[in-house]
Amino acid sequence: MSFVFSQTREFEAANKKYAASFSKGDLALPPARKVAVVACMDARLDPAKVLGLEEGDAHVIRNAGGRAIDAIRSLVISQQLLGTREIVLIHHTDCGMLTFTDEVIREKIRSDLGQDADHIAFLPFTDSEKSVLDDIKLLQEHRLILDVPITGYIYHVESGKISKVQRV
Amino acid sequence: MSFVFSQTREFEAANKKYAASFSKGDLALPPARKVAVVACMDARLDPAKVLGLEEGDAHVIRNAGGRAIDAIRSLVISQQLLGTREIVLIHHTDCGMLTFTDEVIREKIRSDLGQDADHIAFLPFTDSEKSVLDDIKLLQEHRLILDVPITGYIYHVESGKISKVQRV
Repeated sequence: MSFVFSQTREFEAANKKYAASFSKGDLALPPARKVAVVACMDARLDPAKVLGLEEGDAHVIRNAGGRAIDAIRSLVISQQLLGTREIVLIHHTDCGMLTFTDEVIREKIRSDLGQDADHIAFLPFTDSEKSVLDDIKLLQEHRLILDVPITGYIYHVESGKISKVQRV
Repeated sequence: MSFVFSQTREFEAANKKYAASFSKGDLALPPARKVAVVACMDARLDPAKVLGLEEGDAHVIRNAGGRAIDAIRSLVISQQLLGTREIVLIHHTDCGMLTFTDEVIREKIRSDLGQDADHIAFLPFTDSEKSVLDDIKLLQEHRLILDVPITGYIYHVESGKISKVQRV
């Protein structure tokens, strides 16, 4: 590959600073607050800052949209092997998942990459509150997920606030 | 469900503080630094702090182990629709994925939940450096992933440091 710009030099410099004042080298492997957070990968959403999580507190699982079905493997490991007993789900306003359909992205991949992605469900949605409720229901009914408290929030990228989503 | 302890009251209180001094309400949807980070869900690892990421900088995809195969849907959306052109992969020392095998967790699920999980690949590994190299190779060869810089790190939970993993 010819020269391409990379962020890694800056990441490594930032890490030197982080490590220089690091004082959390003896944290336990199981999350102290027994919570698994499932959140969107969106760049504007920092789940630790938004929820006040410190290192060691909670598992944080993130994917495009914060979709529950894509987090099952991780949640089962979190619950069965590492003792988490609560799930917090975070979707957000202005989500990229609101901007496309499976057909749109499959056509782009066909056109730009010459590849077939018809076998992939990209899991877009048209309403962030409904996607939270759908995902809570999926987790509540999933045979491999424990009966634990599950709370769903919308994160508002404009204000930094979370609002709880409840079935009306 | 009878009363169970939940962390959500504390999360909502922490969010009030975060939102009270929030000043990043006009960030763009596409990640400013055009990077997608794939990292383990481990509670001790905060990718934003470890790499010096601010809100708006990068997609952060996290799952049990930080496994690439479980991040393909999210990475394709990140690259095709939101313009990221670099991938950073972070696995870490003392990972839970080093402590079990598919057979162990499937037997626990059979015994504790009375359920069959034989169809799920839980993606454990026995060597964190090898898992990083395997996942870089998987991404480099994947027909739906662009030819972009991919850098793999081990995060050291004891020191807060990252070290680059390179094929010898």
